[in-house]
Order: sequence, then structure tokens, then C-alpha cells
Amino acid sequence: MKAERDFIRKIRDHVGKPVPAFLRLGIGDDCAILRPRAGEELLVTTDFSIEGTHFRRYWHPAASVGHRCLARGLSDIAAMGGRPHVYFLSLGIPGVSGNDLPNRWLSAFLKGMFALAERSGVILAGGDTSTSPAGLVADITVMGTVRRGRAVMRSGAHADDNLYVTGSLGGSAAVLHRLMRDEALTTADVVNTNKDKQKANTRAPLAPARTKAVDSRHFFPEPRIAVGQAIARFATAMIDVSDGLSTDLSHLCEESRVSAEVDSAVLPLSLGATLHEALHGGDDYELLFTAPAKVRVPRQISGVPITRIGRILPADARNPMTLLAAGKPLPLPVRGWEHFRN
Amino acid sequence: MKAERDFIRKIRDHVGKPVPAFLRLGIGDDCAILRPRAGEELLVTTDFSIEGTHFRRYWHPAASVGHRCLARGLSDIAAMGGRPHVYFLSLGIPGVSGNDLPNRWLSAFLKGMFALAERSGVILAGGDTSTSPAGLVADITVMGTVRRGRAVMRSGAHADDNLYVTGSLGGSAAVLHRLMRDEALTTADVVNTNKDKQKANTRAPLAPARTKAVDSRHFFPEPRIAVGQAIARFATAMIDVSDGLSTDLSHLCEESRVSAEVDSAVLPLSLGATLHEALHGGDDYELLFTAPAKVRVPRQISGVPITRIGRILPADARNPMTLLAAGKPLPLPVRGWEHFRN
Repeated sequence: MKAERDFIRKIRDHVGKPVPAFLRLGIGDDCAILRPRAGEELLVTTDFSIEGTHFRRYWHPAASVGHRCLARGLSDIAAMGGRPHVYFLSLGIPGVSGNDLPNRWLSAFLKGMFALAERSGVILAGGDTSTSPAGLVADITVMGTVRRGRAVMRSGAHADDNLYVTGSLGGSAAVLHRLMRDEALTTADVVNTNKDKQKANTRAPLAPARTKAVDSRHFFPEPRIAVGQAIARFATAMIDVSDGLSTDLSHLCEESRVSAEVDSAVLPLSLGATLHEALHGGDDYELLFTAPAKVRVPRQISGVPITRIGRILPADARNPMTLLAAGKPLPLPVRGWEHFRN
Repeated sequence: MKAERDFIRKIRDHVGKPVPAFLRLGIGDDCAILRPRAGEELLVTTDFSIEGTHFRRYWHPAASVGHRCLARGLSDIAAMGGRPHVYFLSLGIPGVSGNDLPNRWLSAFLKGMFALAERSGVILAGGDTSTSPAGLVADITVMGTVRRGRAVMRSGAHADDNLYVTGSLGGSAAVLHRLMRDEALTTADVVNTNKDKQKANTRAPLAPARTKAVDSRHFFPEPRIAVGQAIARFATAMIDVSDGLSTDLSHLCEESRVSAEVDSAVLPLSLGATLHEALHGGDDYELLFTAPAKVRVPRQISGVPITRIGRILPADARNPMTLLAAGKPLPLPVRGWEHFRN
């Protein structure tokens, strides 16, 4: 109990006193109190991160685990075109009263999470801590706002809409597959590219053959918050690519009651990623969205490339998703990432 | 993935289509969308329930585990005087693709949770599912509303306020201690008293000697939602007794910067509970609150007894909490329940 109190105090001290108008009361009571502005709707998303399922301590640096836990929720808010404000952290800690998890690890975990929170303008508003008999378990609830009626849902796509994706796909899965094959990663692979891009590049220049290079966004994925808000102005439907393109596109098609066609020739692959990883690899946290053909979608937003990768077709139960491979239509199966299933 | 989809579909089918005005969009998109009414503030609370820490599968029937997971969050909303509306369930399931957790168990778990949700007028608005390498882990976020500025916080108690508690204390800890001592419980002990009170009483009439009888609210604690709303009209501070009276009173005193005195002679003990269990046992989910001495607090609200158990004193660092035992003042230590710490 004392250990838990000390831990909560540590977190509370970090969060500090300044409270934005949206958050009337934060950590320290039975509930947090939020005061949304008139004309705003609230967005809520929860994401579970479980050691052994979503991360492994000997693969993922502590700061990366903390970053990834929060990134998942921020990406969900981005995928509705919303602005994130607060988050709640429920944390099950192995041996909080013992020594199963070094304090050093936990501090680095929180540092990774707090750094992303600060950059994203979200504040920790509450949560719960507990002892976990097995590994670390962290559940994050992120809450944001959107102008009333302006959230972009999965269900708004229509036949003849074009299909787009931000950034590139497959980079996270490519790193994960290297980890699974037990390949040594260079230090640069696990450097936070957002903060230390130049430093990383200096230390480990990417091989021109592309075979060894990896996309370090696996460790520090960047939720597309500002880009999502810009896309929301013209998109008919949107979802974030967290479980893999094939899985997330299938969700969008199901909710919109449409079919879709993806052209493999134009799919933006991440450095070092295979087509298979781009189609089915998870954890990219890019945004997949649709827009009417008449809309002129910019080629990039805030420096993030936007690529047209296909189009929406009328619902076709026999061909829910099609992949154009060398111009030939093939069925695109749902093979999204399944969290380290052995 | 297919197993997860089937599970989510099962949950979604249960929740069904009817959506209250507050919940604009529920399960099935990147985020849920909430639309609070003008003049309302939002209350948010999260509670982690971890197998081996908060419950044990060989002690707690599945329906009880499901009930208790949700009851914790509802009780937090009650402790602010709020009305709960929606909840989010993040669930880590051991061997969702294997057979570590029988489907039958999971169904009963959900049934226990859904039954309490329905009675409490809350609807499942989203969540996350995942495989858990160890035991079952469930994180619940409950959201409710309160009229703007009307939430009762822990921080509002003043010297000379009286201190009250709803219902009785120690019953949950008494059952837990029996479980820990490996005493066989009668069927009646695990019957949901809320629904089956008469049936339970018929099957196992409580022993007049009080020694064998237990309070089955350990398995199906009843969050004091309506009572909390009534108390909110006159209370200066409130907290729910989830970690034990001594721990929760210490939170209230800290946040209000006051001291407190509890009279052991008038403490309402649950049937079969000891004074120690009433002072330090957790999981009672009663409401502890303060009110100015001039307020006439009813003796009961909606059939739930209200007992004055002490009073608030000016802050005194050397005597933060005092227990009157046979009229003599003793220091009351913080010894709240520590979740099965071994």
C-alpha cells in the first residue's frame, strides 16, 4: 500500500497542478471531472497492452513500451478526426512490493509515456494501480473532443470513393519479424526517430541495399493527430491501421457495407518491409481513409505523404476485398496481426 | 483473431441497438462518441481487476467476478453523487484461442457483469480484448454525469462536520478471511442477495450466534448509486469505502486537510464481522461522508441505514485519525486492505 501510494504520488507530482479548462479535477478523487465545451462531443477509446502479448520486456525498451501504450489510444482519437485531451492509466505492476520489475524500468516506462503525452498535448487525469502476479499490464483510456457531428466514422464510405493511406505500411511488422528471428538490432533501430532522427542517422547510416534498414517507428510510432484532423475535413470514413491493412480495411468495409480494391503496385511500403508485411502487419498507426472521387486530396499533410491505394466498390459478398497484383485481381484475405500468437 | 471477433460480436449482440441520448456511438468504431447535456459535467473512473490480486477463480464464482469488476467503478461514480451512464471493458483473456478459460466461465462472468449493468442503467460502450498469458485481467472505465459544480469531492470536509457511513462495514473482509482460512462456505454465502435474498434465507437461515453467518455482499456488493445522489444534496465530502475505512478516511482527511475521530462503539459492523474487519477491511462499497452538524441527516435513505460514526476535527499532524475505544482516544492507523498481499 505504501509502495502504491508512493508510486501514485510520484505520478501526481509529475502531472503537477496546471489543469486545462477541459479537465476540472484530475488525479486524487473517486472520479476525474471533465467539462466539455458546448457544441463538442466526447471521444473515448481504451487499449490494453499486456506483456507477452503486445510487448516483451527483452525486445522492447521500457520507454518504447510506455510510448506505445499511449500511442494506440491517441491513434484512435486521430482516426475520428478528434483532438485528444486527457488519458487514464490502469497499471498492473509485477511485484510492486518486491523486485520483479526494477524501479529503473518503471521510471523509463513512464518517461516514454509522459514524453509522448506532453508532445501530444494530453494530460494524465486518473487511473488505477495494482499488483500483477504475472507481467506488466497497462490499460489506457484516452478521451478527446470533436465538433458535434463531425467525427469521421468507419461507416461512411461509399462506392466510387477513393481509398487512401498516410505514411507507409509494414515497417513495424518488419522490425517485429526481425525481433522474432532473433536478429540483433543496432542501437539506431530503437532510437526515438521523432526526437533523435539525425543522431540515429549519424550513428547508423541506412544501408543503401535496404535489406538491413528498419523503420524505428515500431518502437516509437507517431500517432497522426494533426493529420487526422486535416483529413476529417473531407474524408467519408476513416480507421487507423493498428491490426494490419487487411484487417482494418475489412472493418471499414463491414461498417460501411461496401467492398474495396487495393492496388499492390502503389502501396507505400516502409523501408525494409515486404508486401506481406504492408498488407497484414500491424502497429503502423497510419490512417486509412476514403474520400469522394471529386475531392482533391493533398499529396501530403504536415509533411506526411498521402497515397491513393485503391477504391471503394459496391458491396460484394463473394469479393469483399480485392488485391490488384500486376494488374490481376486476387482475393485479399483478412490476415491482420494477431499479437504474437504462437 | 477469429475467436476475438466472435467474442466481440457476442458482446455486441448482447448490448444491442438501443442507444441512450448520452451515447451517440457505441461499440464498433475507433472511439465511442458521447454527447453530454448542457450544464452537465462528466465523471470518469477506472478500476483494474486482476486475477490473483483482486479475485481468485477457485474462490469467486464467475458471475461474482463480473459483478465485482463493474461494481467498483459504479461505486466511484456514486461517491461523487453522480449518475452512471456507460462503461468500457478491457479484457485480457487467458487462452482465448485455447482452452485455459472455459467458455462457460466467461459467459457467466459476462452475465454477472451485464446483470449489474442493466439494474444500474449503464450500457457497455466499448473496450478492448486481448489474450493474457497469465490470468484474467479486466479494466473497467465507468463514465457518468453530475450537474455542473455539484460533484461531491473528498476535499470538502470541515472541522466540526459530522462523519457518516451507509450500511455496514467489514462484511466483505469477513468472508474473505473465511476464504483465506479455507473454510467451506455454504451455498447461501455466494447467492446474489439482491435478487435472491429470500431464497438464500430459506436455504440457510442465519445462525443466531452470528459466528457462522456471513455477508454475501462480498460476492455481489451493491454500489450505492441512488443513495449517493441523495447524500450529495447535503454532504460536504464523500468517498466510497473500497480499500477499508481507515485507508479511505485517511484519503478524505488528506484531501480536506482535516483530522477525524471515529467512535468504535457506534460503528455499524456487518453480520459476522470483527471491529478490525470493519475498520480495515476493504470491498464494502459503502459511502463515507461528512455533513455540517446543523444538517439533519436522515437515519436511512432508500432502505439503507445511515450511521453517524464520528466527527471531523481541525488538522492535527500528530493525530490525523483517532479511534474512541470504550471512550478512550487511541491513534487509528491506516491499515486498509492490501489486495491479498502475501
